[in-house]
Amino acid sequence: MKTGKMGRDGKSRSHDEWVYGLNPVLEAIRSGRQVKTVFLSASRREGVAGIEREVLSRDTVLKKVDQSFFDSRFPKGHQGVAAVIAPREYADLEELLRVPSLKNETPFFLILDCVEDPRNFGAILRTADAGGVHGVVIQSHRSATLVPEAVKASAGAAEYIPVAMVANVKHAMAGMKEAGVLVVGAEAGADKTIWDLDLNVPLALVVGSEGKGLRRTVREDCDALVSLPMKGRVNSLNVSVATAVMIYEVIHQRVRKT
Amino acid sequence: MKTGKMGRDGKSRSHDEWVYGLNPVLEAIRSGRQVKTVFLSASRREGVAGIEREVLSRDTVLKKVDQSFFDSRFPKGHQGVAAVIAPREYADLEELLRVPSLKNETPFFLILDCVEDPRNFGAILRTADAGGVHGVVIQSHRSATLVPEAVKASAGAAEYIPVAMVANVKHAMAGMKEAGVLVVGAEAGADKTIWDLDLNVPLALVVGSEGKGLRRTVREDCDALVSLPMKGRVNSLNVSVATAVMIYEVIHQRVRKT
Repeated sequence: MKTGKMGRDGKSRSHDEWVYGLNPVLEAIRSGRQVKTVFLSASRREGVAGIEREVLSRDTVLKKVDQSFFDSRFPKGHQGVAAVIAPREYADLEELLRVPSLKNETPFFLILDCVEDPRNFGAILRTADAGGVHGVVIQSHRSATLVPEAVKASAGAAEYIPVAMVANVKHAMAGMKEAGVLVVGAEAGADKTIWDLDLNVPLALVVGSEGKGLRRTVREDCDALVSLPMKGRVNSLNVSVATAVMIYEVIHQRVRKT
Repeated sequence: MKTGKMGRDGKSRSHDEWVYGLNPVLEAIRSGRQVKTVFLSASRREGVAGIEREVLSRDTVLKKVDQSFFDSRFPKGHQGVAAVIAPREYADLEELLRVPSLKNETPFFLILDCVEDPRNFGAILRTADAGGVHGVVIQSHRSATLVPEAVKASAGAAEYIPVAMVANVKHAMAGMKEAGVLVVGAEAGADKTIWDLDLNVPLALVVGSEGKGLRRTVREDCDALVSLPMKGRVNSLNVSVATAVMIYEVIHQRVRKT
């Protein structure tokens, strides 16, 4: 199976990554990733002792720098805290597929078909972590990857939930099906709602891009399509919100059955 | 009942508002709000004809300006489209309470206890609109109000869903209870989950701030408290995501009962 990890070409994998914001930095440190340098604003007071404690217990350099260091590099919300960490390793699809059996749980994966906004991607990772999703598959092109903005929006979850990057999510869908996983696509206007389906089976939810939803060929490869009913005038949900509602319906059905 | 509308002091109500981004501007125009001037980037091509058509059919001035006009005034995402509109009117709590009977539906309100991030507030309005929520109550202090960033994040829903602004949400909760509405607070770690409660009754969901949840006195005034079960390591949900999951559980229960 082609998993098309980014960076075999040495392009995006060879570079260290920036993480910014208090919680993302703390989570990166605690997750055991190789945090090389932590930068702290000289004018920051709150939480400084906690960061220093975490850093000093590890092989990490702490540098105090001017607030302008952060303002010039990161969007609002950096909180005067940033870190340089060794490149994030993406998981292989095969690794992802092994996670549920290690936990003795019914498989539950997310497949993102060209979700482009890093904040949406990060928000999805955060909810996926809280919802006990076993892994998330993304595509290496036309998709948000684990860039700092996504890591920040994930509130630290990006450090924990396995993310597999593939050249084309359709290959991952085929791999899931081979492994006995039901592949269910989220599609606005689908006849069936998420509530109509038995979700207490090995499951992968596929969600599409913010503007366009699932690509046609991805939609056609799904075992089933489900929607969320909508009232109102605007008649659309943010992709991370729609994904969260569906994740929690899966949890609900599985809780009920146990 | 004290509804404490902002702007009786003439402070925030006397100013025109900016809306930016293609969809928010189009929604503002179509919603019948008094759109005074629409600004369009001279370098924008896509969707220009549609905006011109909407503007020309109304008493609105269209101005073509340089792209830098937008870059200096708005965050990323302005898309070279903005509008000046007459101040948004907040609804009275009494107006909100009348909405369900006009629609012949079981009341369903949201009360936001100091949700501070305008993007979260806007995201909540978007989901509330899609979920058929009858109205949203916010507090005039320590809370995000209908600022441009919130309107933008609402994807247009801010124009449609009634929002009441009160001096203290506790007064609104008391008013809801008097009107026979069950007031349910969202509280991480509450014994009962949202799934344990009969939500097919006149209902107001109260959600708290991003970091701290419900204020103690607000929590104590709730008829019941519910949580969402969480796994994972980060163990928290974004407030707009948690609200969305609960809104859809209400919808689900009401759909099942009809």
